[in-house]
Order: sequence, then structure tokens, then C-alpha cells
Amino acid sequence: MKKNLTDYNFPEDLKSMDESELELLSYAIRDFLIQKVSVTGGHLASNLGVVELTIGIHKVFDSPRDRIIWDVGHQSYVHKILTGRAGQFDHLRQSGGMSGFPKAAESEHDAYDTGHSSTSLSAAAGMAVARDLRKEKYNIIAVIGDGSMTGGMAFEALNNIGASKSKVIVILNDNGMSISRNIGGLSNHLIRLRSSARYMDVKKTVRESLNRIPVVGRELTSGISSAKERMKYAILNEGIIFEELGFTYLGPIDGHKIEDVIEALENTKKVEGPVILHVITRKGKGYRNAEADPDKFHGIGPFNLETGKVLSSPQLSWSRVMGDTLTELGRENRNIVAITAAMESATGLKPFHEACPGRCFDVGIAEAHAVTFAAGLAKGGMRPLVAIYSSFLQRAYDQLLEDVCLQNLPVVFAIDRAGIVGADGETHHGLMDLCYLLSMPNMRILAPADGGQLRAMLRYAFTLDGPVAIRYPRGGCEQGDKEQVFHGGNSRLCDGSDGDIWAVGSMVSHGLKAREILAAQGLHVGVVAVSEVKPADRTLLEKKSRRIFTLEDGMTIGGYGQYMGAQLPPEYEILSLGWPDSFIEHGTPAELYHRYRLDGEGIAERIREYIEGKA
Amino acid sequence: MKKNLTDYNFPEDLKSMDESELELLSYAIRDFLIQKVSVTGGHLASNLGVVELTIGIHKVFDSPRDRIIWDVGHQSYVHKILTGRAGQFDHLRQSGGMSGFPKAAESEHDAYDTGHSSTSLSAAAGMAVARDLRKEKYNIIAVIGDGSMTGGMAFEALNNIGASKSKVIVILNDNGMSISRNIGGLSNHLIRLRSSARYMDVKKTVRESLNRIPVVGRELTSGISSAKERMKYAILNEGIIFEELGFTYLGPIDGHKIEDVIEALENTKKVEGPVILHVITRKGKGYRNAEADPDKFHGIGPFNLETGKVLSSPQLSWSRVMGDTLTELGRENRNIVAITAAMESATGLKPFHEACPGRCFDVGIAEAHAVTFAAGLAKGGMRPLVAIYSSFLQRAYDQLLEDVCLQNLPVVFAIDRAGIVGADGETHHGLMDLCYLLSMPNMRILAPADGGQLRAMLRYAFTLDGPVAIRYPRGGCEQGDKEQVFHGGNSRLCDGSDGDIWAVGSMVSHGLKAREILAAQGLHVGVVAVSEVKPADRTLLEKKSRRIFTLEDGMTIGGYGQYMGAQLPPEYEILSLGWPDSFIEHGTPAELYHRYRLDGEGIAERIREYIEGKA
Repeated sequence: MKKNLTDYNFPEDLKSMDESELELLSYAIRDFLIQKVSVTGGHLASNLGVVELTIGIHKVFDSPRDRIIWDVGHQSYVHKILTGRAGQFDHLRQSGGMSGFPKAAESEHDAYDTGHSSTSLSAAAGMAVARDLRKEKYNIIAVIGDGSMTGGMAFEALNNIGASKSKVIVILNDNGMSISRNIGGLSNHLIRLRSSARYMDVKKTVRESLNRIPVVGRELTSGISSAKERMKYAILNEGIIFEELGFTYLGPIDGHKIEDVIEALENTKKVEGPVILHVITRKGKGYRNAEADPDKFHGIGPFNLETGKVLSSPQLSWSRVMGDTLTELGRENRNIVAITAAMESATGLKPFHEACPGRCFDVGIAEAHAVTFAAGLAKGGMRPLVAIYSSFLQRAYDQLLEDVCLQNLPVVFAIDRAGIVGADGETHHGLMDLCYLLSMPNMRILAPADGGQLRAMLRYAFTLDGPVAIRYPRGGCEQGDKEQVFHGGNSRLCDGSDGDIWAVGSMVSHGLKAREILAAQGLHVGVVAVSEVKPADRTLLEKKSRRIFTLEDGMTIGGYGQYMGAQLPPEYEILSLGWPDSFIEHGTPAELYHRYRLDGEGIAERIREYIEGKA
Repeated sequence: MKKNLTDYNFPEDLKSMDESELELLSYAIRDFLIQKVSVTGGHLASNLGVVELTIGIHKVFDSPRDRIIWDVGHQSYVHKILTGRAGQFDHLRQSGGMSGFPKAAESEHDAYDTGHSSTSLSAAAGMAVARDLRKEKYNIIAVIGDGSMTGGMAFEALNNIGASKSKVIVILNDNGMSISRNIGGLSNHLIRLRSSARYMDVKKTVRESLNRIPVVGRELTSGISSAKERMKYAILNEGIIFEELGFTYLGPIDGHKIEDVIEALENTKKVEGPVILHVITRKGKGYRNAEADPDKFHGIGPFNLETGKVLSSPQLSWSRVMGDTLTELGRENRNIVAITAAMESATGLKPFHEACPGRCFDVGIAEAHAVTFAAGLAKGGMRPLVAIYSSFLQRAYDQLLEDVCLQNLPVVFAIDRAGIVGADGETHHGLMDLCYLLSMPNMRILAPADGGQLRAMLRYAFTLDGPVAIRYPRGGCEQGDKEQVFHGGNSRLCDGSDGDIWAVGSMVSHGLKAREILAAQGLHVGVVAVSEVKPADRTLLEKKSRRIFTLEDGMTIGGYGQYMGAQLPPEYEILSLGWPDSFIEHGTPAELYHRYRLDGEGIAERIREYIEGKA
């Protein structure tokens, strides 16, 4: 073994290592991951779970010729280590540093960019068809968690791959995350597979399964007709859902026994047509604190190695305010129910779940279902709230429009992580929600400036008869006035003679800062807190200064500024400040606001330039 | 039997009818449907397929107390007849007349509005949970086709319902539409179920199945552990995917034998927990022409009863131009592949499929998969085109953004039915695509004014390195110049001194008409054909008339007008004309353009009002 992981020439060096060396390597990788992520923060638990699996994949397959697709992408750290990027972990997810997700722009070993769940199988299906049409020969391996498998898109892909002749290798990384939450019939199916007697002796399983299921395993399935064959099939009873859909099912195997993993992967190569290998792993494996609380160590900030305690966390987070307020409201009104798509803890719903048992529903990674399920609840007389991240809500665009807005149903959307999110970068910034919600009829959109206002808005939202979206950012928030009430509309915070900043929700603080800077330079702008994004409140238009500077934590195209601009009397002029027409990289929010001139300084500068350009 | 269907007091009158009367009623309903739809046009084949099923549902269940949810909604005509709306069929889908889809606003018997596929199970899940929480007692019945079952959202719902305790009755209306297209592993599973020996003698099946599967059928599934039980399970082997997901599976039964349907439905009532009844029906049943070509009679205009020939169809349709051009391009470039989500014929892909076998992929009703599958194809070196309706593309919002745009992949989107579609109404108008595509970085958006330009744009699109969306309306188009070429940008069609109309794509003809009307009134506006919606072409801004009137067949909020407006120099003024912030009802396009002042006259009037208001 070499001293440092950076001393290896991966993946080549893997090829010559024997199983005991690989096992040693797995220890080194775990150590490395825990050390590095404790400093930078990042996704830890999922990566600790796939150490042996990733080693096995790079041992057995030949990247970049063979293409590995990592579903969701946050399980790709080991892959990054094994493809020459160990040296970049000190700047993981930091501005200018390595991304926490696969990025083709970063390495030729990153075959497909992922970030959102359940896309890997569809991408693999397309790549496999392309390969076959072009008469090329290489393997396509999609690694997908059991949680991601609950996303409908994964089923759409399974259904299509299963019926095709294309060889796709699906590795089902079953870490029981859908199981621990006890979500869905599929997880029950997986439980039955996991608990099968065969799992007890893993090597025996793999070998015997392969003997009994002929390598052309699909024949067995499609040719099934006689009672005798059916009986045989039943006795095997392995992965019957997958077999019925047209896959050869192998497994389950212990994903932490390197020799079993390698043997099973070798076997997947031999199967013709689509094959699924069911690998049992443990999220957080090898780090006591993460094994004990994999949810906490899913995505985490810098933490103390010994205690597992996060080094700094905000006094008060937006999610917390949402959850606590909902809990209060839920105690008052028994019709209130909450829905989350596998984000109960992160969206702050846990206290509600405890206080109002039987009224909190985690549907798994299934955003489309979550939204229509909420619509059904509303139809049935309940008052549902969907707690969801901005960038994931867009996975239910059609359901928002066709189920909720069209029927004008009273569903409250608590849109968390709206605006820039920081380290997770491009795929996770919540910059689109204003754009897509604004053009949906019947949707009311609110944006609180502080915790007190979020609290007041939630209370207000449940008094309305139609859909309401309340969007607020990731992270910590100001307490604000806990006793404030909200009845719609915006509020003027200060006057100005050179124009007004209209700042949406949490951007109010940036607007106030800009006002201060400008004042020191002799320019006097007012500030309006835009709490009600839609419908537009135009009552606060100022007669003496007919310049409006809108400010939003979202894309400028199709955003609040354009929406408001279109409603201004013609004698007004408007400058819309938001995010430009490109994908925004990762970095801390402060860095990004600064780089894109959306912090107080940048805003002040742009307003001054605008006014001076006009003068 | 009464003379006319309108003479009955449905659904009450059904309750006293015996099976032979119900059979007679089924003939009367088929006659009625064929007659009426031959005059008005509408969805015929799917409704002919569910006559006995719908009669059975209203015989066995008690609407509106029991809630019936019709997936997709175009299979609800018989339900409308049986809930007192037979008299409204002369104005089916006509302006001011009855909708072709369930609408709560139309009848208390329409428990949930549908229009897009695969939503019924999620809605039913929500309603069932609401019912149980409120300790109410009624049945919830979701009727879903096998085609809709391929949508991932249906799987998300199955997965959640299967794991819950809530009683939901799912009726799988298997008319083999996913099967005839041979799409997916699920359809193979259904084929095996259909071809099981038991289906031969339907009544026997139902009775025996019910005897053998205890009414508490889920025990069997969850308790399965011993080899003996497994064997029993295998011999039954009925609906194993559904059973594994936690449902009690009943069937398959012949959906055209009224007594079997009624008996099976009675049995679903007795099952505890989620139950799925598999009903085999024939799309177009009872009308020779529709049975022979169910695709054609899926949604059809007025037709000749005898011959089945559509009375009037456009000389040349946009879809036809797309399909023919793609066929040409496909012959030239072997890397071109096409993807459709169960709309091969309607989007014009048939000729391509025939000319380029093995390169046309119908993935079923699975839009999210379709888009990411295309992304995978592009990653693998192919040049994919996704042919899709505007209102269905929004079901893949997240995949457009995260898979295609983020990776900047060369996928061409042929967006059919963009703009107002007419008789299908609210759920099918393609008014959102400009709004949601404009805010996606890297997406180029084109809109042809005539067939020749669509042809040129398709050729151009395949020369580009990133994603391109080409949007065009439903129905007939002008031939245009077949030899024209396109290299991006807009074109000025005529000058004017009082301002310029900037008309997007097919709205050019409306713009020219408005110009003519205004000219007769002494106002002279120019016309610019906006072919490239994004990036914005600003080269044709006129110095002498600084008024811009944008014209688009899409929502005004977040649309082209606002996008363009935000890019105009401040000395320009803009009036954006598009669809207002509400759901647009059904009616002919001409009626709707007129009512919303988006035809030549209306546009001219609004421009005149604007100019005069300014003067």
C-alpha cells in the first residue's frame, strides 16, 4: 500500500491489486473520506456505503470506455478518488473546487451528469441504444439506490429497458433507506428479498443463482407457461418484479464483501440483455456516528470527527420555523396534513410528525405523486401542505398546473431551499420556482423576509381557498417579529428620491444594505419588501421616483422583475436584478451573491451605474 | 327500454335494471356515442371500450357518494351519459358546451378533474387518506388504462397505496394499447396475465380466484415465507407485480360481459385494503371502423358513420411537415433518431419509423423518461428528436432542465400542439411552453410561420450543438416556400410608422391581418416575423417607430413579450399580447382567438386603443 491515496494512478493501479489489497484500500478510502468531509462538509453516509461497490466496479469494468452512471450523483466521491481526483478533496464543493456531483466537464470518467434522483436508468437506456446502433462495444452501468427506485421515472425506464434487447447493467444499491422509512410496496418487496434465507450465505447464493438461472435468464421469464416452470420460478422467487419486467435478477449480495462484489459484477458482464444486481449496503458504513444517524450524515457541514457534532449550525433556520409553525397550526386544525418527498427531517417536518401522528406522509422520492396526492387530500376536505425543496418541486410541474391550479385546490407549498443553495451547486439551486409558478393561473406566491413573517404567512395561507406557494431560502433566518400578522400585500420599509428597490422576500436584507451604501454616495433609494410576489401589489408605487429596481433570488428571465415590469404604468422604468441566463456554479452563497453582484455592494454598484447611465 | 337515453333518470334508473336490460342499454349507449361523436368529433374508441364497465360501476357503486376518478378523462363519456348529461352531447367539446373531460364544475359526479395521464391513482390515494382521517365511509374507484399505467407517476402511486392500509379500488382497463405497441416489461406482464388459461372461462376465473385468494388477499402476499406457500402463490401467479406491491389482484375478466363486470365489481367492494381489478376491454368495441383502427378513432373530428372517413382534414398539417422532413433528414443522417411518448401517429413520426426502422422509439406515456432517454442517446453520439405535444412536454420540466440543458446536449424538441388546441380545452392547450423554456439556460427556441419554415428549421436544428425547441400549432399549416433556408434570426415582413408587430411563429398571419385592418383606419404598423424566440434577435428594432407589439400564442406572463420587453432599450415601449392569466376553456381556435382578442380584428383593436390611449 502506498502512503497516500494521491500516490496511486487510479483506476489503472486497481487492476493489479488482489482482494486483500483492495480490502486495505477500502479502509484507506473510508479514513480519507471521513477526514476530508469532516473539514469541507459534503455527502458522507452514502459514499461510505459504496466503498467496496465502487472499488469493485472499477476493478471489473474499464472506465472511461465502460460508462458508469451514478444516480443522484452524491454517491460518487469514491469514484472520484478512484479516477484521479483524490487530490481535489480539500476543495470539495468549494468555490472553484471539485463538484460534489459527477461532471463530465471535470473528468472523462464522469459519463453522465446527475444531481436529481431517478434519472440514471433512462440515461443508461439512451446510451445503450446509441451504443448498439453505432455497433460499439462497451458496458453501461447505472448505480441506483433503493430510494431513487421509488421515483416513477426509474420505473418508466425499467419498463422500457426490460422490454428492449439492450444490455444495461443496473446496480441496485439497497441501503434500506426506502425501507427504514417504510415507504412503499417496492420496499416491502425488497425486504422479502433481503430476508431470504439465501442472503445468509452470500457466495453460495450468487453461484447457485447463476447455475439455476441460466445466463440467458430472460428465457425463463418469458417462456414461463407450464405449472412446473411456474413452480420452479416461485421456489427461486428472486427479484420477481424485476424478472417480470424483463430483467435478469442477481443477488442479493453483501455489498461490503469485496470478493463477493467482484464476483457478482463479473457475472453481470456475462448476462445477455438487461440485468439487475441487488447489492445490500449500509449507509454510513465504517463510521460509527454516520451508521447511527445516516440521515444527519447524508449531507452535512464540517463536523467534529470524534463526536460527529456539526461545527456550526444556524441559530434558527427557515425549515425550523416552518416546521414549528406547522406543528402549532396542526394542533389547532385537525384537517392540516403534511406531505414530503423523502425530506421529512430536512424540511423541518419532524416535530409536526410527532405532534400530529398519522397526518404526516413521506411518499418517498416521488414528487409528482406528492403533489397530486396533496390535491386528492384537498379534494377530500383536508388542508395539505407540501414541504419540498425548490429544485425538486419542478419535478411536479405538470401536477402543480393540472391538478392543483386548474382545480384551484387549497394546497400550501412550503418551498424550502429557494434561491441560491451554495455547495450543492447547479442542480440544487432553487432559481426556477418563481419563473414557473408565476405563469400558473390561480397560484398565489409569497416570500417572507424573516422567520416571523414566514410564521405569519403560513397562518394566512391556511385561510385561503386556493393554492399558495411560500418560498424561502436554505439555512439560517432572522427571528423577526414573532407576533406579526400577514394579510397579503407588500410593505414599504423606507422612502427614497432616486428610485425604489423592490426586494423579494429574503433579498430585503441585501436591498437595505445597498440602500445604505448608496446613501453614503449621495443616492437615496427607498426599499419595498415584496412579500406577495403574485398577485402583484402595486399600491406602493411611488409618484416622485419612477424608477423601480427589482431584486430577486431567482432567474431574471420570467421572474418577478419581468412580471412586475409588465404591469407598471408606462412612465415607470425598471431594472430587474436576479440571476443571469446560465447555470450557476457551486460556492458559498456569500461568494456567489458577490460574484454575480447580488450582494449589497453589487446591487448598489449596478443601481448607481444605471442611474448614472441614464443621467 | 325507454326511447331515448335522455328519458332516463340516471344513475338511479340503473339500480332497478336487470342484466338483460343493462345489456340492451349498452347497445343504446354505443349507438348514441357513435351517432353523436360522428357529428361533433371527440374521443370515441376509448369510450366504446368502457360501456359495460361504466354501466357496471354505476350499477354497483353509488355516485356521487362513491367517487369515481377517470384517468386521462377521455374515457368519461359513458359516465357523462349515466350521470344525466346525455342531453348535452350535441354540444360536446363545443364552445359553451360540455367538456370532453370530467369537470367538477359540470357535475357533482365528476369527482376529480383529469386530462393528463396517470394521475388518477395519486388523486385516489389522497382522497382515500382524507376519507379515512375524517372517518367517512365511501368507495374511491380509479379507472386507469394499461397505457396510463406505464407513466411513472402511476407506479409512484401504486407503490404508496400498496404500502398503505387505505382502501382504494383500482380498475385496470386493459385494452392492450400499451401491448399493441409492445411497450415495456409491464405490458409483457399483462400479456402473460391475459393469456392465462383462466381467462378462457371468465366466470370460473373470478369465482375460483376469489375462493382461492382469501378476501383478505394481502395476508397471502405479506405472509409468504414457506416454500409451500410460495408454490401456491406461483400456481396462482395472478398479478404478481401488483400483489408484490401490496394489492389484492382480481381478474382478468372480460370487460364486455356485463354480468361478469358486475360480479367482479361487487367483489372489489368486499376486499379489505387496496385492490386492483384487471378488466380486459377492446378499444372501439362495437363499431367496426373503430375496432379496426382504434388509434384513428382515439380522438377524431366529425366523420362519416358508414365509411369512418373524417369529413374534413387539413391539406397539410404541421405534424405531417415535421414527420416528412424528419424522414428526409433521417435518410441523410444515420445518427438521427426519434422518440415519442405514445404519440407516434399524431406527431407525424410514422413515415420516419417506416423509413428508418430501429431508430424510432415509442416509450409509452412516459415523458420524463422520454426526455432523459433522448439525453442519453445524445450522450452516446446520436442526434435525437423528441416529438411531443406542448402540454405533455411540461411533464418533463425537470429532465429538460437538468438532463438536456445543463449538459447542453443536442436534443431537438418538435413541440406539436403549441398554442391553443381547440376542443380539448384547458388541459391540452399548449400555452406554457414558451414560459418554461425561456428561463432554461442553453435552450434555443424557434417558431415557424409556415410549413416551409418548419422544414428549414428542422434542418438547421440538427446542425447545432445544443438543445433546440421548435414549437408549432395543432392542425393545418400553409405550405410556404419549400426551398427556404433558415440560419436563425427574425425577418421583417413590412415596415410601419406607428409601431411594429413582432409576431411569434404562426401568429404572423394574425399580425398581418391586424396590419391590414389598421391600415384601413389610417394606422401603419410594420410586421416582424419572430422565428427565433430565444436568443432574442434585436437586429430589426426600428428607429423611427419605437413601439413594439408582441404577439404570441402562449401565456403573457413569462412569455416572449416580457422576455423581449426586458431587453429593449429604455426608449422603446412595448405592448405584449398573448393569453391572459387564467385557464382557457374549450372552443374552436377561431372562436377563442376572437373571444380573447387575439385574431386580426382583436389585435388591431387593442393596438388602436393603445396608440390612442397614448396619444
